[in-house]
Amino acid sequence: MNKKVVGELFSLVRCRNPLVHHITNTVTINDCANVTLAIGASPVMATSVEEVEEMVQLANALVLNIGTIQAETFSAMILAGKAANEKGIPVIFDPVGVGATSYRKKIAGELLEKVRVTIIRGNASEIDSLVGGKGKTRGVDAEDKSFDVTQLATKAANLFSCVVVVSGKVDVVSNGKEIVQIENGDTWLTKVTGTGCMTTSLIGSFAGTTDDYFSASIAGMSAMSLAGERAKKNLSEGAGIGQFKVKLMDEIFHLDEYIWGKEVSIVES
Amino acid sequence: MNKKVVGELFSLVRCRNPLVHHITNTVTINDCANVTLAIGASPVMATSVEEVEEMVQLANALVLNIGTIQAETFSAMILAGKAANEKGIPVIFDPVGVGATSYRKKIAGELLEKVRVTIIRGNASEIDSLVGGKGKTRGVDAEDKSFDVTQLATKAANLFSCVVVVSGKVDVVSNGKEIVQIENGDTWLTKVTGTGCMTTSLIGSFAGTTDDYFSASIAGMSAMSLAGERAKKNLSEGAGIGQFKVKLMDEIFHLDEYIWGKEVSIVES
Amino acid sequence: MNKKVVGELFSLVRCRNPLVHHITNTVTINDCANVTLAIGASPVMATSVEEVEEMVQLANALVLNIGTIQAETFSAMILAGKAANEKGIPVIFDPVGVGATSYRKKIAGELLEKVRVTIIRGNASEIDSLVGGKGKTRGVDAEDKSFDVTQLATKAANLFSCVVVVSGKVDVVSNGKEIVQIENGDTWLTKVTGTGCMTTSLIGSFAGTTDDYFSASIAGMSAMSLAGERAKKNLSEGAGIGQFKVKLMDEIFHLDEYIWGKEVSIVES
Repeated sequence: MNKKVVGELFSLVRCRNPLVHHITNTVTINDCANVTLAIGASPVMATSVEEVEEMVQLANALVLNIGTIQAETFSAMILAGKAANEKGIPVIFDPVGVGATSYRKKIAGELLEKVRVTIIRGNASEIDSLVGGKGKTRGVDAEDKSFDVTQLATKAANLFSCVVVVSGKVDVVSNGKEIVQIENGDTWLTKVTGTGCMTTSLIGSFAGTTDDYFSASIAGMSAMSLAGERAKKNLSEGAGIGQFKVKLMDEIFHLDEYIWGKEVSIVES
Repeated sequence: MNKKVVGELFSLVRCRNPLVHHITNTVTINDCANVTLAIGASPVMATSVEEVEEMVQLANALVLNIGTIQAETFSAMILAGKAANEKGIPVIFDPVGVGATSYRKKIAGELLEKVRVTIIRGNASEIDSLVGGKGKTRGVDAEDKSFDVTQLATKAANLFSCVVVVSGKVDVVSNGKEIVQIENGDTWLTKVTGTGCMTTSLIGSFAGTTDDYFSASIAGMSAMSLAGERAKKNLSEGAGIGQFKVKLMDEIFHLDEYIWGKEVSIVES
Repeated sequence: MNKKVVGELFSLVRCRNPLVHHITNTVTINDCANVTLAIGASPVMATSVEEVEEMVQLANALVLNIGTIQAETFSAMILAGKAANEKGIPVIFDPVGVGATSYRKKIAGELLEKVRVTIIRGNASEIDSLVGGKGKTRGVDAEDKSFDVTQLATKAANLFSCVVVVSGKVDVVSNGKEIVQIENGDTWLTKVTGTGCMTTSLIGSFAGTTDDYFSASIAGMSAMSLAGERAKKNLSEGAGIGQFKVKLMDEIFHLDEYIWGKEVSIVES
């Protein structure tokens, strides 16, 4: 990892303003759009099978998130994913709650078979489930105490020939050869819905900015963890997750190369 | 009602962290997920017919909300509801705007026929419509001036053999025999969309914590009314419903047995 | 334009409390509901083909927004639009991202053919696309530097025999004969998702209040631009788009004839 290269992505995304096409869940779709704007990219959320392929032609990155997946939206994901592969833009996959039901496992497998995915981001249970483990997913929650996360990330990265981001207390990013650990964050990030989905949108925003997808993944993941840490620190007394969520968006909006360079805590291993 | 038992639910829900499966509307789905987290439970929002039955197996409570109901999602509700009945977890039903259209009346009736519902929460017009009254629902709004709400709640509770919660200026909870009235609240709770839906999610969170569903309903309903009252009181000058909504989430996040015991105003009748 | 008439709509909407039926996108649906409440109207968001016609019978205005349009929801829009025409309530159309894909162009054309639309609101690219221009829509973003916006608004107003609102740095409202330009606003309104959709909801709220649709359009458009300007001015240090969005809702909630009359900057041409 070249820290300077990653840091510079924070100005580059605002300068290039990539269009990030999302096919995502209905729970966090508004937050994903806003976080994409906050980091300096532009979101578009078309989900209809009639138009996703054409929308991909305008996009610089495609984010696929199965949080509230239904059959028709899944068809749209496959169409969009193939179009993205053909056009050569990155596909970022968020396998929300994939271990929870056999339906999710099935469609995640199908997606990974039919679409070349550039980056996968999930928690340890989700990534473990993708690589065939029995990682207990409880709904969409992580229970990742028992995982060797760096090993898991690398295994998944090699299996799917892509960059893998495992969010957690310490975040891990692996491209199969290089691994970094991001030590920023705050437990409150788990108390607001959609911080995972938003992280994937941030990664999508950076991946639409550069074809150095390892750096893009590090930038997106660390942006969320660092913003969460800063948001928590700067909360006024009596604040709860309502204000934390508002502040989180503010911090992402203000994050730049300088703040990031000073406060991010990344370990290469 | 045993006030001590209800109060203790506030620590119990955070300790047990029940998984609350929602099949709900697209308007307030994000707020419902966040309020579930704020009170100490975990939300999951799967809605696909392909997976809801399996998701129910992981859940401790099922919330069904017809706010933006469509045919396919309704099929998912029936599947999930039956699975919940079989598994023995509580089903909490929010008949949003049921009096507004004949379609809503029809599917609400069908749901109550095919699924054993544990708790119903609505405003007076909605509950009146369920029991066959002509309660004018204007869209999803309440016009409940003309109702004898305690009588209505008890009638519905007996008719559907469940706990019924009627939200309003004074909230009423009845299990058919016992009735309590909650006198907390603030009119601004009607100026933010989704406070009703969020109340149902809170009730679901408590119902996933204990099988004393009468106490769970009182805890959930009073949590919202008390948090609304506190949020309004603590607003800074110039604040409107934007800040009120943020503060509401903060207050729910901080609500505990001690605050609740001191400030809740419940009358048994 | 009669400024006094427009200004009085701010008390009138709160007094008449019109019901505004939305069939809209899943990204900003929550914000649209809340902004409708904030200005003093009531939202209802039914989208099912089984019930939209009946819901229209209760409504005072119908808002149609194609932001995340899918085939079935489009069918619901046509049904609702025809019912609204028959009942004689205004139909407000938001052609989100219409230039982005041929599917959106097709359905927007079909909607304008089958439903008499009362007011259209979009950015310059969207309106240009509706009148057959090649206005580059990049996703749902505007790139409206190159348009003669007043000419465009008037052309569209005459073509579709309706009021046309073009949002931008300067907003333009035309009924084909009269034109006004609104000079309030702030660039941050483009950094939060849904401010366009919310503007359409505000216009719908005023159009449900009076049948002077030109005045209603001016009221709705200027309410958003003025609230955005005020929200930005009153932000505390370090605030970003998170707090801006919260404040925006607060400002709309507090907007009244007096503030509007003093601070709005409207030019008739």
